[in-house]
Amino acid sequence: MNKALTFSITCELNGTLARVGIIKTPHGNIETPAFIVGGTKATVKTLTSEQVCQLGGQSVLANTYHLMLQPGADIIAEAGGIHKFMNWSNPIFTDSGGFQVFSLGMAYKKGLDATSSSEKGDYRKAVHSSSQLAKITDDGVTFSSHIDGSKIFINPEISMELQHKIGSDIHIAFDELTSPLASRDYIKKAMERTHAWADRSLNRHQELNDKHVLNNEKLQALYGVVQGAREEDLRKESSKFLGARNFDGYGIGGIFGPTEIPTVLSWVNNILPMDKPRHLLGMGSQPADLFLGVQYGIDTFDCVAPTRQARNGALFTNSGRLNIKNSKFKCDFSPVDNSCDCYTCKNYTRAYIHHLFRANEILGLTLASIHNERFVVRTVDYIRESIKDNTFFEYKKDFLEKYYGKHKASSFL
Amino acid sequence: MNKALTFSITCELNGTLARVGIIKTPHGNIETPAFIVGGTKATVKTLTSEQVCQLGGQSVLANTYHLMLQPGADIIAEAGGIHKFMNWSNPIFTDSGGFQVFSLGMAYKKGLDATSSSEKGDYRKAVHSSSQLAKITDDGVTFSSHIDGSKIFINPEISMELQHKIGSDIHIAFDELTSPLASRDYIKKAMERTHAWADRSLNRHQELNDKHVLNNEKLQALYGVVQGAREEDLRKESSKFLGARNFDGYGIGGIFGPTEIPTVLSWVNNILPMDKPRHLLGMGSQPADLFLGVQYGIDTFDCVAPTRQARNGALFTNSGRLNIKNSKFKCDFSPVDNSCDCYTCKNYTRAYIHHLFRANEILGLTLASIHNERFVVRTVDYIRESIKDNTFFEYKKDFLEKYYGKHKASSFL
Repeated sequence: MNKALTFSITCELNGTLARVGIIKTPHGNIETPAFIVGGTKATVKTLTSEQVCQLGGQSVLANTYHLMLQPGADIIAEAGGIHKFMNWSNPIFTDSGGFQVFSLGMAYKKGLDATSSSEKGDYRKAVHSSSQLAKITDDGVTFSSHIDGSKIFINPEISMELQHKIGSDIHIAFDELTSPLASRDYIKKAMERTHAWADRSLNRHQELNDKHVLNNEKLQALYGVVQGAREEDLRKESSKFLGARNFDGYGIGGIFGPTEIPTVLSWVNNILPMDKPRHLLGMGSQPADLFLGVQYGIDTFDCVAPTRQARNGALFTNSGRLNIKNSKFKCDFSPVDNSCDCYTCKNYTRAYIHHLFRANEILGLTLASIHNERFVVRTVDYIRESIKDNTFFEYKKDFLEKYYGKHKASSFL
Repeated sequence: MNKALTFSITCELNGTLARVGIIKTPHGNIETPAFIVGGTKATVKTLTSEQVCQLGGQSVLANTYHLMLQPGADIIAEAGGIHKFMNWSNPIFTDSGGFQVFSLGMAYKKGLDATSSSEKGDYRKAVHSSSQLAKITDDGVTFSSHIDGSKIFINPEISMELQHKIGSDIHIAFDELTSPLASRDYIKKAMERTHAWADRSLNRHQELNDKHVLNNEKLQALYGVVQGAREEDLRKESSKFLGARNFDGYGIGGIFGPTEIPTVLSWVNNILPMDKPRHLLGMGSQPADLFLGVQYGIDTFDCVAPTRQARNGALFTNSGRLNIKNSKFKCDFSPVDNSCDCYTCKNYTRAYIHHLFRANEILGLTLASIHNERFVVRTVDYIRESIKDNTFFEYKKDFLEKYYGKHKASSFL
């Protein structure tokens, strides 16, 4: 294969932006729509690669910022690249470190995350916070390491160099994610910076790929990132600007909560080139994200919520989330979810997992992570099948009404 | 199968007490000698049942004391027994709570354990400690729960009832393990109490098994426990007393460190009935335990050290233990042990596991536990094969010299 990435669309859903396709990379294919499993520090938390394969994970997403700090991109390169390092032979995404501009800047120590915070209403505090670990200029971002406080500088060129050393298949351009409470002026400024950084990312990326060609190495792909928050004109401008560049695909950042998905993705995905894959950055913590994302033209998602929530004892079921630590599960000898096909549900009961959580046994975290990750991966797999056989809307309605109840689900239908 | 347990010896090693055999239980067979994997709270720490099977674990040992506190024996009974509860369909041992008489009494909060402490020389402190969570009378033991401080009483009858509810295959009689620094008077007193408790355990156990017959349920086996510390006459008396009773097998308790094994086991195992299986309680934290135990007539071992040490980053290799957290492993892309056939060694490097430990990633604990547990299970499996083909002493010498170095190994040869 002499291209970093090819994308072919095999099926579309009339009247929507939804499509079924295949992303081909030098490390294998991803059938889309697909949920990309979170693997921040080159590990899917609590799970072996074998377990991630068994639960149907097609691809994982690791984080350039975390890996540059620990163990360092050079060590991963010396290991023969991230695939060998973490024992994952299928496609790997890396994000650029751009998310940390937000999470270590505006959102630092505020308990914010990009997927759940808009419901908490605490952005105001974040915006006025002075406890930040990231300082931004037009050249790049200076971080204070969350590990030892040392100063770290990342700019688009450095991010590209790191991602090439790490050796992931799909890289993300270095971008600036803004807070949902940022002013229009700031959103515009950050978007323009993101565009300048996109061009710089693309230039450096192409230089590095040229070297790979000379060295007979595998090529790597680069996605540009559309920003612009909730501003229609800025989102459209961002989509046009980036859509005209030679990216292999596009990430869409800065969407906070499922209610923003239809509006923002309608602006963006009607402009971005139809024949390139689109990734919804950091979203997928709840089923509405997945159904709405696909309906409005998303091909891949990533989110660390399935394993993070699992470690807190919050388990996904067809009828909503349950807290396995609740004493009502002490004698509940049914599986977490009766209809689930995961290793956990096939072999263990709620009572046993409850026991493990109460007894602080690590196996509880593993079993919960297997279940939640399988739940989300399977949901997107079934969405893919429902597009093929034209039952997407029936599946969506049925799933969301069972999960949220009819009233709440109605806002997503 | 209408017996709780049968044991057949298929091969013996001339000039030693070593033998190869098969323990048959209603939940399958154990090929002996065998290492029984530690599963204290009805979980092998950090591992799924599937992983324990994959690493060759034939049987696990859970702890009656821990399970009575959490989740409670009634809940395990309601689940259909511990096999269903923890998803382990092969044989399960339970210990009686007797070890906690020691660990929550004499040894409480002293960092002592039965397998390593004699080398630390801190028993003296333990003996004079007043911070104890266990008080002993001839009737039984009152514990203060380590979870909530509530008072819990266990005596031989209660221990038997709990183990029958839990539904393990092989139960251990309720006994009193003494500190290695206890006086001869106290050791004698504790041994006599252990004998009285053995008779009471056996009586109650037989009553409960009679009920199983009436209810067409599986029978359960009971091992008596030989005590007597380092006192030759007491060990021999204990072996005669218990050997004359109708136990299905024998546990040997109160051996601290491998150097005691040859002496004590020679006293005991030349008296105990040859045709019954013998379990060395709580030992197996180092290879010398395993080789010497087998040589002096032990059929099964249990020890939590492989997973506990793994969680501390101490990994077993053919040339001794290594601390994977050591920075020298940062760029070491070889497996933990080149000759190891475990999932971890086949798929991951020292550098990656080092990274996981440094980054506080739980997967590190899991991969380390798989490796250490496989290392110990395989060592005992190979010992079994070496008896069959009459290469035990070559294997022992070669293994121990590589592991400890020639000088230290010489004391075990």
